[in-house]
Amino acid sequence: MMNTPLTLVSLIERAEKYFPKKEIISRTQGGIHRLNYKETGKRTRALSSALEKLGVRKGDKVGTFAWNHHRHLEAYFAIPSMGAVLHTINIRLAEEHLVYIINHAEDKVLLIDIDLLPLIEKIKDKLPTVEAFIVMSDEEKPPESNIEPLHSYEALVSEGDEAYQFSTDIEEEDPAGMCYTSATTGKPKGVVYSHRGIVLHSMALSMADTAAISESDVLMPVVPMFHANAWGMPFVGTWLGSTQVLPGPMMTPKILAELIESYKVTLTAGVPTIWLGLLNELEKGNYNTESVRAVLCGGAAAPKGMIRAFETDHGIPFIHAYGMTETTPLVTLARLKSYQTELPEEDRLEIRSKQGMVVPGLDVKAINENGEIKSDGKEMGELLIRGSWIADEYYNDIRSQDVYRDGWLYTGDVVTIDEEGSIKIVDRTKDLIKSGGEWISSVDLENAIMAHESVFEAAVVSIPHPKWQERPLACVVLKENEQLSKQDIIEFLEPQFAKWWLPDDIMFIEEIPKTSVGKFLKRALREQVNEQLNV
Amino acid sequence: MMNTPLTLVSLIERAEKYFPKKEIISRTQGGIHRLNYKETGKRTRALSSALEKLGVRKGDKVGTFAWNHHRHLEAYFAIPSMGAVLHTINIRLAEEHLVYIINHAEDKVLLIDIDLLPLIEKIKDKLPTVEAFIVMSDEEKPPESNIEPLHSYEALVSEGDEAYQFSTDIEEEDPAGMCYTSATTGKPKGVVYSHRGIVLHSMALSMADTAAISESDVLMPVVPMFHANAWGMPFVGTWLGSTQVLPGPMMTPKILAELIESYKVTLTAGVPTIWLGLLNELEKGNYNTESVRAVLCGGAAAPKGMIRAFETDHGIPFIHAYGMTETTPLVTLARLKSYQTELPEEDRLEIRSKQGMVVPGLDVKAINENGEIKSDGKEMGELLIRGSWIADEYYNDIRSQDVYRDGWLYTGDVVTIDEEGSIKIVDRTKDLIKSGGEWISSVDLENAIMAHESVFEAAVVSIPHPKWQERPLACVVLKENEQLSKQDIIEFLEPQFAKWWLPDDIMFIEEIPKTSVGKFLKRALREQVNEQLNV
Repeated sequence: MMNTPLTLVSLIERAEKYFPKKEIISRTQGGIHRLNYKETGKRTRALSSALEKLGVRKGDKVGTFAWNHHRHLEAYFAIPSMGAVLHTINIRLAEEHLVYIINHAEDKVLLIDIDLLPLIEKIKDKLPTVEAFIVMSDEEKPPESNIEPLHSYEALVSEGDEAYQFSTDIEEEDPAGMCYTSATTGKPKGVVYSHRGIVLHSMALSMADTAAISESDVLMPVVPMFHANAWGMPFVGTWLGSTQVLPGPMMTPKILAELIESYKVTLTAGVPTIWLGLLNELEKGNYNTESVRAVLCGGAAAPKGMIRAFETDHGIPFIHAYGMTETTPLVTLARLKSYQTELPEEDRLEIRSKQGMVVPGLDVKAINENGEIKSDGKEMGELLIRGSWIADEYYNDIRSQDVYRDGWLYTGDVVTIDEEGSIKIVDRTKDLIKSGGEWISSVDLENAIMAHESVFEAAVVSIPHPKWQERPLACVVLKENEQLSKQDIIEFLEPQFAKWWLPDDIMFIEEIPKTSVGKFLKRALREQVNEQLNV
Repeated sequence: MMNTPLTLVSLIERAEKYFPKKEIISRTQGGIHRLNYKETGKRTRALSSALEKLGVRKGDKVGTFAWNHHRHLEAYFAIPSMGAVLHTINIRLAEEHLVYIINHAEDKVLLIDIDLLPLIEKIKDKLPTVEAFIVMSDEEKPPESNIEPLHSYEALVSEGDEAYQFSTDIEEEDPAGMCYTSATTGKPKGVVYSHRGIVLHSMALSMADTAAISESDVLMPVVPMFHANAWGMPFVGTWLGSTQVLPGPMMTPKILAELIESYKVTLTAGVPTIWLGLLNELEKGNYNTESVRAVLCGGAAAPKGMIRAFETDHGIPFIHAYGMTETTPLVTLARLKSYQTELPEEDRLEIRSKQGMVVPGLDVKAINENGEIKSDGKEMGELLIRGSWIADEYYNDIRSQDVYRDGWLYTGDVVTIDEEGSIKIVDRTKDLIKSGGEWISSVDLENAIMAHESVFEAAVVSIPHPKWQERPLACVVLKENEQLSKQDIIEFLEPQFAKWWLPDDIMFIEEIPKTSVGKFLKRALREQVNEQLNV
């Protein structure tokens, strides 16, 4: 068969050719912009030509430091379609990490949102590889700044060649993008996405049993375009000619609800905290959300109660998914099989609150000390993933060898897999408690404790034990003006768990330490606990 | 990213692992068989092991000569998953062509349906490469036959190793299947399908804007499994765990209608003549066809009236598609874009009666003497196709160079492409009439003449002309007891066409010569006309 490479060029060209009238609706500092794919194609080509004039060549890295908007979307295609590499930079990283990744990737050009410019101004002297800075705003004149040389995005685009021919010299294994993922300890680790990986991932996102993304969709990625390709939505949406709603900087739940109503969003994607915020907003306001056919939720586990609230109270179908920066990111998606649709509501909710089944095109398995685990929904093991859109190394990073072994990605996530192949994340390998050779899920205990009406939040960590090696200890933050004893909590847990799962001790604390994205920072908590226990 | 090859092994393994309970419902000579994917996986592995014992090795061709049923489905996976090549043989070929293709492919083993055995018995002495024959029936004992050695499929499967490990030594570019396509003149031409091509085609079939095939589908391919992979349905259906209904030998419209009703078929695929038959049956019987979400139609153009009848009279959505043996086969599919759904019914029908827009993953263009044609729905050109599931040669065949040029497949089909990218086949290049440098579509004239209530069928061919090079001549078969003059026909056409399109002459004949699959045999008709005209 023909040896036609799978590249991103064909995605943007399809949008230009077949969906010239369909629109990208973008909210920026300056208000709402509407651009169709014909205009977007021209602007994208003009941007490629401008980058070429600035010296960008095949394989060069071009960094973006931006919210979700049409200019970022243009960069998503302009950079890879000229053979360069789109490096999306997480705007929430600490200064030290920003400097590290821009230098580590050797970014040659940086595209920066005007409101994020101060963050780059602070570190500009530490970025020797960057030859040009481009500021993205509605103006054709760059703002006052100490950055040199600072170009205006709009000026470059208006002077660029809108008939620029995209590269025909791209192999499908060539890098198209990269994104750094934060490590629990040490520097961020770079993941490189190939053209092939992104195209196959786009096909997967459009398959009927996954997200079924279609031309008729109005997509609103709330997940940032600076993180894991906004879950691939800008790529597949452009390819299929979907309408795209890009919510821009600093979006609040109110802004999201208004965008959904105004533009009849059909599919939106983000993390649980976003949806919790939206849920509160929907309960306050009187928004019309009838257009929404699915809310995709990943990044962390969604509480069952939230899924129920979306579906029962608001009639909005909620789809739980799982992936990582290393996996482009879609790996699993929780949908009912056809013969599960007649199950009682609670059973269906139970299935749909798991992370779900692996999507077509990938393989997964889970292993523990005894080899591959049984698919019984009980045995726990570390999740391993393999497939065409899974990274096989970290970019120039010795830590690759810890994670990519024997052709598999070792996720560090501990899971169970049930008889139907549905995966449930029960812990991180590092946070799992190994008591007398058996595993105890800290996440399961935490969720159970947090279901108590007096508890604000709870985290469970292991403490050393002379006989059992490790035993669980629960750190609990009570709600304001609430009182509970250790015994109250143990009694609350007793009916739900085997005796040996119950925490050996409960520690009441003021706050659980968290990462920059709001996840529990167990390492810090363990240190804090050990200090207090003097172990 | 990981270098994971796209192979058929992952398709059948996914069905075994995640959809063990879902079923293949198969109608054979012996009645209805129901097998789930767990059993199918075991039988498929047992078949691979049996073929290995018979001497089949990587790259060997194994021919199948069979209807649509579960054994054929098992062969669809057993042969490629051991690294061998599934050669599906068209049971309707002339004896001479059967001998040619079996020898040309060098088939090592043949799997033959019991009711088709007599066809092979006649030619068995002319098949020197075939080392073993396997008869497919419900019996474990082969029938009396002059064929040697003749094995029973069921005996081989029951003795085979149902835990056989599929090959791990398959590259995605390796051949998985092959199928010969009949040429207008000369011997059939072999098309080889790679693992990669079939996997990508399967993904494409599941995308929301194409056939959106899903686990929840009940698929009934009426298009034969011996022709263009039954349009890929057995592959994608197995991968996704769809229920499959395989209608077996000699199916009548009544049998199809009954299968649809009994097994709640959701998607079925076939050629227009099949659907014409089904339509008549549905009008006679009182069948429940509510489950059908789409009838896929390809192979030849479906008359607008038929589309209307399915949708308006029976509430069955009808999807027009286009492809060739050389294209795995899906190339285009006629679906409305989101902004076309509000158009008046006639406009929608007009769009949906075209062959449609190219599916994601392929490129098309059309060219004539002046280069690439305009997308105005008027200019005509030969359709060229490019992409990952398009053949790049005929197997060991010098005629490849006529068809595969500059990285494109030259289809020989003349098309228009409209502003929306929708393709309409107007003729075969060979049948197009070139009058004074302009092109006249014989198909358009034929369809217009056939719309006359007194006409049974009509074909238009070119005759030589001293000034205009070629001019159209219409051959018309009237319905019984109907009378029309040449002038009646010209007057009927006049309001519909430019003057220079009107046929120079009308010839009333008894019958239009046809190919074995019922297409007009224009070459024979031209000869017949030339003889009568003495040119």
